[in-house]
Amino acid sequence: MKLYDGGRAPNPRRVRIFLAEKGIEVPLVPVDMTALGHKAPEIQQLNPLMRLPVLELDDGTVLTESVAICRYFEELNPEPALFGKGALGRAQVEMWQRRMEINLMMQVGHAFRHIHPAMKEWEVPQITEWGEANKPKAVEFLRLFDRELGDRPFVAGEEYSIADITGMIAIDFMKPARIELPQECANVRRWYEAVKARPSAEA
Amino acid sequence: MKLYDGGRAPNPRRVRIFLAEKGIEVPLVPVDMTALGHKAPEIQQLNPLMRLPVLELDDGTVLTESVAICRYFEELNPEPALFGKGALGRAQVEMWQRRMEINLMMQVGHAFRHIHPAMKEWEVPQITEWGEANKPKAVEFLRLFDRELGDRPFVAGEEYSIADITGMIAIDFMKPARIELPQECANVRRWYEAVKARPSAEA
Repeated sequence: MKLYDGGRAPNPRRVRIFLAEKGIEVPLVPVDMTALGHKAPEIQQLNPLMRLPVLELDDGTVLTESVAICRYFEELNPEPALFGKGALGRAQVEMWQRRMEINLMMQVGHAFRHIHPAMKEWEVPQITEWGEANKPKAVEFLRLFDRELGDRPFVAGEEYSIADITGMIAIDFMKPARIELPQECANVRRWYEAVKARPSAEA
Repeated sequence: MKLYDGGRAPNPRRVRIFLAEKGIEVPLVPVDMTALGHKAPEIQQLNPLMRLPVLELDDGTVLTESVAICRYFEELNPEPALFGKGALGRAQVEMWQRRMEINLMMQVGHAFRHIHPAMKEWEVPQITEWGEANKPKAVEFLRLFDRELGDRPFVAGEEYSIADITGMIAIDFMKPARIELPQECANVRRWYEAVKARPSAEA
């Protein structure tokens, strides 16, 4: 088994953090995305969408999509449960995982890809107006998230989950996307500091 | 238990089709989205994101996000398995579910919301250039999907899954978004006709 890894990009990082939380070690094959290594024929043959990460099993089976790769490891190594426990717990993690992704991660990604000069060849056409339109959308969700988070420790409830990983990488991604976490979002700040302090955050 | 339903919109439909495939009946509370019923205080109290569908359990617990609601029912009623079987099978369904969503459904949604005159008050700012940019992205993915689908019966393999539901609602949504399935995508056409012929497609 080997994991074609994309360094600092959000989705490769999501899988590495997940594996660190699980205590699973998978041999990494580093791919230099800044040199467009993910568009090389070797990667395209594994993933026609030319995105990372890509997990290749020993029999040649290929899995792509970071959350799908995470779910594969969750099924093989259920503890600690990062996709929730029980019918309601699993649904609540999925709900929050999707909320963080569809309302924050995507907006931050659009802002980055449609505004940052380094993305000009990645995102064609680059539409500045669309990039800018995503910044207030992200901030609006962060305020909503702050109210919803309340005083519970983690995104989906009492336990750390993949929803926390997605939330953390989205907020880290706000830096290159030039979006600021509103000062008054105290619950988000407290939560973010706690998840950033876990050893997995360095993965 | 009751399901606040949003009629013809893609996500409410996704859950109704899923329930039909499972043979589960849940009392529906119809909400008229064309009259912005999803922004009414009653819905906002249940889902601060003001989106449908919303599942309310008998104890008042609320689940939102169509895929999270589907997963809840999958956990309670595992057969027929619509999220895959076994570690690899579940990961493959998740991979294809995400591929259909991130590379097709989202693009179709952006094209619809950023171009259709009826969406002017829903999507602010409405950016025509971004809507138009999504049409070729959707078509490009459909060509890739056509190659990947080959002669297997369903999106993720030999069994019908939530990835087929997501794919079908995305393609149906192409009509109001004014995106055409390329004539030469014969595998996609054959698959689409097969999933549309299932009784669940009418749900």
